Amino acid sequence: MTEPAGAAVTVALDGKGVERGTATLVAGARKAAADGIALRVFGDPAALAELAELPNVEVVEAPDEITNDEEPVAAVRRKADASIVRAAADVAAGNADALVSAGPTGATMTAGLFALRRISGVRRPALALQLAVPGREGPPTVMLDVGANAEARAHDLVQFAFMGAAFSRAVLGVAEPRVALLSVGEESTKGTQTVVEAHAELAGTEHLNFVGNVEGRDLLTGAADVVVTDGFTGNVTLKTLEGTAKAVATAVGQAARSNPVAMLGGLLLKPALGGLRRQMNPDNTGGAILLGLRGVTVVGHGSSGEDGIANAIRLAARAVRERAVERTAALLEEAGAMRGEPT
Amino acid sequence: MTEPAGAAVTVALDGKGVERGTATLVAGARKAAADGIALRVFGDPAALAELAELPNVEVVEAPDEITNDEEPVAAVRRKADASIVRAAADVAAGNADALVSAGPTGATMTAGLFALRRISGVRRPALALQLAVPGREGPPTVMLDVGANAEARAHDLVQFAFMGAAFSRAVLGVAEPRVALLSVGEESTKGTQTVVEAHAELAGTEHLNFVGNVEGRDLLTGAADVVVTDGFTGNVTLKTLEGTAKAVATAVGQAARSNPVAMLGGLLLKPALGGLRRQMNPDNTGGAILLGLRGVTVVGHGSSGEDGIANAIRLAARAVRERAVERTAALLEEAGAMRGEPT
Repeated sequence: MTEPAGAAVTVALDGKGVERGTATLVAGARKAAADGIALRVFGDPAALAELAELPNVEVVEAPDEITNDEEPVAAVRRKADASIVRAAADVAAGNADALVSAGPTGATMTAGLFALRRISGVRRPALALQLAVPGREGPPTVMLDVGANAEARAHDLVQFAFMGAAFSRAVLGVAEPRVALLSVGEESTKGTQTVVEAHAELAGTEHLNFVGNVEGRDLLTGAADVVVTDGFTGNVTLKTLEGTAKAVATAVGQAARSNPVAMLGGLLLKPALGGLRRQMNPDNTGGAILLGLRGVTVVGHGSSGEDGIANAIRLAARAVRERAVERTAALLEEAGAMRGEPT
Repeated sequence: MTEPAGAAVTVALDGKGVERGTATLVAGARKAAADGIALRVFGDPAALAELAELPNVEVVEAPDEITNDEEPVAAVRRKADASIVRAAADVAAGNADALVSAGPTGATMTAGLFALRRISGVRRPALALQLAVPGREGPPTVMLDVGANAEARAHDLVQFAFMGAAFSRAVLGVAEPRVALLSVGEESTKGTQTVVEAHAELAGTEHLNFVGNVEGRDLLTGAADVVVTDGFTGNVTLKTLEGTAKAVATAVGQAARSNPVAMLGGLLLKPALGGLRRQMNPDNTGGAILLGLRGVTVVGHGSSGEDGIANAIRLAARAVRERAVERTAALLEEAGAMRGEPT
């Protein structure tokens, strides 16, 4: 790439619904804007006034908001003036290149899906998350679907495999991503009927480096570059992973406060744990990306801090710059993976 | 209970297939026998000679073995002389009260199912595992199914709920176990169609303290006493949990070896982490128990050490003493949870 990093990208940012408050959103947006990413921020102009002063940021009024309590599909249909709906429409209209929100996940996915539409032949979009391998550098493992759809057919899983591989290649720079199916054993016969069928279909394609099944214990070992599963299993798995890491970290912290010797030990050890803490911090990747659409949509982590917001915007900009959508469509086309039921 | 602990219980123990070798099995069996649990151990008399010398242990020759590479159903049908098949038949014949194996999980479950049969009206047995809450005392959370069946219907999940509640009450002493469904959100409409249907059925029963849905992040917080899911999701989740705990522990260990100050810190902190390490050790609970059968079957953890073996035997003996099977059948009967398809 010869263009200056980020010069050409404009991101439409939902200016509402951030769990930690608008000040966090403003601080995160400011960091991303400082990288040269242009922003169009939808929300309350008074709350976002500080951002409007920046040369490459425009604040657009959006009086309404969709909350976590609302049913996403009904809310997106009804609330044309909600910040996320306006931001999505802005991308569809060509005023911005990508959509980013740290508001309610369901509303973001629905607004993105309605406004940006699916790549031709894709039956379901999938939410993809990057998992860092603890204590190790190098590209993260991409897991998808982590919650866009509660159910998936075998051919949906096959499409997810191609979508994940294209993302790993385009955005993470992995030349030949190793793609695996999440199951309960390595053998091709292990798992639900859907997983067994998807395994057979994936084993038969030449357009993918399919390495077979992996198990839950392999998610953080870097055994695969892309791990494919349905949105129910993926979401439960992801939250189990986050919950376990937190529970272990909390218990270690408790132990380190249990007596003076342990406390001293904890203090001496703490600096060496900084890298691990940074790596395990969800702010590090900035959120999940919705794959399979004709545009880029990034769903920020619910509890995003300012770095989380900034990294969600950076992830969206990188996906635009690396032409992730076009490359996903091309891979699906090349592999003939869009056969199956008409959409 | 007025009887001396374990006095009346005899456990049939598979004497083969232990990953860490027969010496580990012998050491574990010796510990359990020292608690007063009578054992009938099936395997190679020469390898088990040391056990035969104990007053309450009998060694029974079983020349054959089922390995991890074999398809369990076919192998159990074909190999009448395999140690696990002989041990299961011994329980069915009334010579022993419970079956324990640390060999291949599939073979143990199949041999147990074939020999002990299901409680009348139960469509599927479920494998239940105890999860300790890190850094906290008190009864563990029971998760089921962690892998007996790859697929489950809504009514299977409802039966699992009753089976898990009966186990928590009878064996873990929780008076009114809080029973939850594993899903992707708290709302009754979240999850797969199967989960949504099971939620509705469970919400309608008065015979259970159903507390609604929990998410993956709640598994180690003690939010519920019983967490119900299908065997695919349960197995993936369990392995994710184990893998994450291990990955975090490994990364902390690496950090503690990264420089001399961190190393000293790690040494000082180590004693305080002993309780957490013991608690997170799978040997602590001894394995999973197959619920829904007319007898007790305990599946040892694949990598069981001698304490794992001993605790698997103790778990089986406790389930027999507390009449877990009879109490499970009674709860299912009382709740009318055995309607549905005839078995």
